[in-house]
Amino acid sequence: MPTIDLNADFGEGFGMYDFGADEALLGSITSASIACGWHAGDARTMRTAVERCLRAGVAVGAHPGYPDRQGFGRRAMALDAEDVYEAVLYQTGALQAFVHAAGGELRHIKPHGAMYHRCDASLDHADAVAKAAVALGGLALYGPPGGALERAALSAGLPFAAEGFADRAYLPDGSLAGRDRPGAVHDEPSRALAQSLAIAQRGEAPALGGGFVPVAVRTLCLHGDGPRAAELAALIRAGLESAGVAVASPWQP
Amino acid sequence: MPTIDLNADFGEGFGMYDFGADEALLGSITSASIACGWHAGDARTMRTAVERCLRAGVAVGAHPGYPDRQGFGRRAMALDAEDVYEAVLYQTGALQAFVHAAGGELRHIKPHGAMYHRCDASLDHADAVAKAAVALGGLALYGPPGGALERAALSAGLPFAAEGFADRAYLPDGSLAGRDRPGAVHDEPSRALAQSLAIAQRGEAPALGGGFVPVAVRTLCLHGDGPRAAELAALIRAGLESAGVAVASPWQP
Amino acid sequence: MPTIDLNADFGEGFGMYDFGADEALLGSITSASIACGWHAGDARTMRTAVERCLRAGVAVGAHPGYPDRQGFGRRAMALDAEDVYEAVLYQTGALQAFVHAAGGELRHIKPHGAMYHRCDASLDHADAVAKAAVALGGLALYGPPGGALERAALSAGLPFAAEGFADRAYLPDGSLAGRDRPGAVHDEPSRALAQSLAIAQRGEAPALGGGFVPVAVRTLCLHGDGPRAAELAALIRAGLESAGVAVASPWQP
Amino acid sequence: MPTIDLNADFGEGFGMYDFGADEALLGSITSASIACGWHAGDARTMRTAVERCLRAGVAVGAHPGYPDRQGFGRRAMALDAEDVYEAVLYQTGALQAFVHAAGGELRHIKPHGAMYHRCDASLDHADAVAKAAVALGGLALYGPPGGALERAALSAGLPFAAEGFADRAYLPDGSLAGRDRPGAVHDEPSRALAQSLAIAQRGEAPALGGGFVPVAVRTLCLHGDGPRAAELAALIRAGLESAGVAVASPWQP
Repeated sequence: MPTIDLNADFGEGFGMYDFGADEALLGSITSASIACGWHAGDARTMRTAVERCLRAGVAVGAHPGYPDRQGFGRRAMALDAEDVYEAVLYQTGALQAFVHAAGGELRHIKPHGAMYHRCDASLDHADAVAKAAVALGGLALYGPPGGALERAALSAGLPFAAEGFADRAYLPDGSLAGRDRPGAVHDEPSRALAQSLAIAQRGEAPALGGGFVPVAVRTLCLHGDGPRAAELAALIRAGLESAGVAVASPWQP
Repeated sequence: MPTIDLNADFGEGFGMYDFGADEALLGSITSASIACGWHAGDARTMRTAVERCLRAGVAVGAHPGYPDRQGFGRRAMALDAEDVYEAVLYQTGALQAFVHAAGGELRHIKPHGAMYHRCDASLDHADAVAKAAVALGGLALYGPPGGALERAALSAGLPFAAEGFADRAYLPDGSLAGRDRPGAVHDEPSRALAQSLAIAQRGEAPALGGGFVPVAVRTLCLHGDGPRAAELAALIRAGLESAGVAVASPWQP
Repeated sequence: MPTIDLNADFGEGFGMYDFGADEALLGSITSASIACGWHAGDARTMRTAVERCLRAGVAVGAHPGYPDRQGFGRRAMALDAEDVYEAVLYQTGALQAFVHAAGGELRHIKPHGAMYHRCDASLDHADAVAKAAVALGGLALYGPPGGALERAALSAGLPFAAEGFADRAYLPDGSLAGRDRPGAVHDEPSRALAQSLAIAQRGEAPALGGGFVPVAVRTLCLHGDGPRAAELAALIRAGLESAGVAVASPWQP
Repeated sequence: MPTIDLNADFGEGFGMYDFGADEALLGSITSASIACGWHAGDARTMRTAVERCLRAGVAVGAHPGYPDRQGFGRRAMALDAEDVYEAVLYQTGALQAFVHAAGGELRHIKPHGAMYHRCDASLDHADAVAKAAVALGGLALYGPPGGALERAALSAGLPFAAEGFADRAYLPDGSLAGRDRPGAVHDEPSRALAQSLAIAQRGEAPALGGGFVPVAVRTLCLHGDGPRAAELAALIRAGLESAGVAVASPWQP
């Protein structure tokens, strides 16, 4: 029976500001990557997010980012690998305290935004994340299949969950189409569901321009922002399950 | 044999900015309270401070503060007790990750500046710190003798180390003289040493205006900033030891 | 012909975060107090807010706050009067640059949140705001009628616009009822409109508990957040005008 | 009579943290570029720096940087040109308010650190700085000779002061040697003075590896940090003047 995890970035509000449809997603996702107070989130949102996820049986991971709240961690920044190690250790350590305080267990690290992209491309940066994950007790890493994060996890002996996307179009080489290309985002729910099914059941996704491309992943990222994010998540969850796909985090029995 | 701990606030630089004479203090102190990135410090300074302390055999605690880097955590801020719980859990959790990564153990929490004063006066806020200390595995608290932090530690079942000061003058009621009063700070090293000896050996300090006042504490705070801070610390350490006082953290055998 | 200004706090988003219904308010308000990047806002939101207001013919003021983004500037902070002078000069100077760049003129300063309340109560802090307003070329101040801000404006020779509220209930002594009291906020649009009319036409507001209390103000604050903020603003604007009240900023001919 | 300006970055402390030898430099420099609260500085340090400079007859400019206090604005960040325009307008507007409040005039903008380097290489970013300088009333730009900032100033009709360095070695192509190369920094005061004289008197500097390279600049940057910064600045000032070089800002008669 094919199995897939549905993950979402979580707790990305800040102070007075809400962001995304956290509460509404909880019935659909099986793991969450919670922002840790640098690119988004703060102590209050982290605590709330952790408690919500644990109550809902959603596996909790950390979503550390660059120290760039104004740019939401999406702008490249010339941190070196030591900076990244320290940034991830700081943020994930803080989140782990909230998880332990709530009686749960922290499961994974998924770098955010520009840090995610840099870690996918640079083994130094990916190794820095892995080193932090080891120091924190051997957390899993989430990242793109076949990139530096996967190699770093492998050589550090850490579990790795390759991540795919339900609503982003793939190119024939297996990479994601840039957001500025026509058709790069599946706005139609039916296309996002079809892609989710293709990935979960057959390990492949429709390629932009025609045909299919192999996409071997253990988790699918759903977006929590956008006007109909929660609805789409629910549709995908239901569609996968009614097609016989088990939806479960890597830590569910 | 009388025993006393010598503690200092530690790792209070930030980015390019140095603060205090951390390195030079290491030979004199037996415990350090490390800033956690809110009022001062950052991931790099925390890592460096932790590694320095562990190498030197200095016991490591957390020094969380208000989110007010510009005011160095010294300005009162209307956080409520829930905010304080979350602030302490976040900051101390982050520091604990660095301590574990370096193979050490985090021992205590000493709130900083305005948070320290508020927690000494408000049982709600002190209880919030104690609740975070429990969640983090039962850390000790440092604070003024006889105040709310001591009561909170007691009722949470946490170790408590009452803290006195080597170079601050005491009033006849056992409180510290405000910094604006003449004679409030012992600028002469010999007076700071004499007060340290009186506290460590006899549990009393000279009172401003004459006579002595009981000061029953387990740790003395030495200041790390100021032009001759390291020198004074070394003088006090040597003076205590040559007078037969054991200088040791609460966690030394 | 009775005349009143309708103002709203404006540009209080940050980075990726939206806040309030700025765009939708523009047809109803005649002046806006724009956040300046400390409690809320950033360079981008300030620029956008300024350009929107000027295009819509809405008078632009500054809305400086405490350096507490996490608490949205609503938490009391122990800044002294010099800090407040510098905080207001910094933030308002930054906003003025955007106003000048867009070819407009900055008109007033309205302190935000905890700073607003402190300045209403403390003449030192109000004088600090006035001193900054003088240094910036003689800006008007917005504030509660009869408080320290009004006195500070008067003694500095600055224009002052006393501010009332459309949807907050008044106590018999003319102060606002605390938000935790039943009836403190007029959730029914018709009550907010009735109060606006009473203030604009007769200089009085219904008092909580019965009767009326004098409320002599030149501007009414409308809230931009909340689900139906823009609708309520439009209703009040239309209601005032159809009752023969001129709705105009203090700087409109 | 050859004329040169001596400039230094100024006011780069923050909160409790001092940085550099501002006060001691005032007798040697003729213009200062004051940090504006993003990479360094805050409202208090800006006010103090402005007042010190004006009292000492030192011309005041703005030194805006990236929003990266932890990295002191030295880390590359993927801001786009619109971000840079807004960042410079915000920061310089804030500083201008302090300069006006003190009765002075703001003269120039010199981008800081990573922003300086990016603006030297990218005409888009340099044009963004120039656009802000125009909006603020036509401020001069400081930057490397012959780069994008110079071109941007020229096409915007702004004064430009090309900047050289007293203590950094030049390569035969006129660029600065990277700090990691041996000999890249003139630690010997006599060499820094000799280079200052060669630049001021003959428009050339010694090239690393031998010979001379043309360096046609209107201002020399002196570093304010480092143990003997103020001493070196005084030596260079005295050495230039006794060799018959006039030391004056571009705005001195």
